[in-house]
Amino acid sequence: MKNIKKIIDNIDFHKGSGMVPAIIQDEKTKAVVMLGYMNRESLRMTLESNVVWFYSRTKNKLWNKGESLGIFQYVKEIYLDHDSDTLLIIVNEENKNCENKNCSSFEKRIK
Amino acid sequence: MKNIKKIIDNIDFHKGSGMVPAIIQDEKTKAVVMLGYMNRESLRMTLESNVVWFYSRTKNKLWNKGESLGIFQYVKEIYLDHDSDTLLIIVNEENKNCENKNCSSFEKRIK
Repeated sequence: MKNIKKIIDNIDFHKGSGMVPAIIQDEKTKAVVMLGYMNRESLRMTLESNVVWFYSRTKNKLWNKGESLGIFQYVKEIYLDHDSDTLLIIVNEENKNCENKNCSSFEKRIK
Repeated sequence: MKNIKKIIDNIDFHKGSGMVPAIIQDEKTKAVVMLGYMNRESLRMTLESNVVWFYSRTKNKLWNKGESLGIFQYVKEIYLDHDSDTLLIIVNEENKNCENKNCSSFEKRIK
């Protein structure tokens, strides 16, 4: 627990008004699945449970993909960038049943 | 030009106060290289030049990796997510000379 607090304290939540963006990348396919936002609480829950939890900016509440879609994103690795204000989370997604092959949110190709 | 305006008009810049996050992924290695922010102007320049341009939130100016590090990120594909508020840009980075093998900003492993 002490270690988790230390990890969280090293992250710059200030720049994003209490949140940091978290890029979710699939461990196997290397596809970028989505971008979500985390506050301190959702990151703490993610580190403790090993399942990704986000904070919804529009609904002002914690959420994860399991709740809405039945897809749980199990944490494999977490990286922090140079500025300590962005996370990259490598996940194993279970229970996927998507229309596009990579189960990615980035479906609309614009270029 | 008309097409570029149409693409930009379809993106939700409102939620991020005039900016959207842009995830940069390397075409060959599939590594997530960095996350930057784009306003309408930097996205227009990116679409016109095929070189990635960001908007710096702290310096309030356009920038790219070529200026500072001599690394140009050439655009291969651009995707928009479901909410139309996040970009995924697949790039070919040239002139790389980095300490870590993937030339990624996400060097600090925290889990």
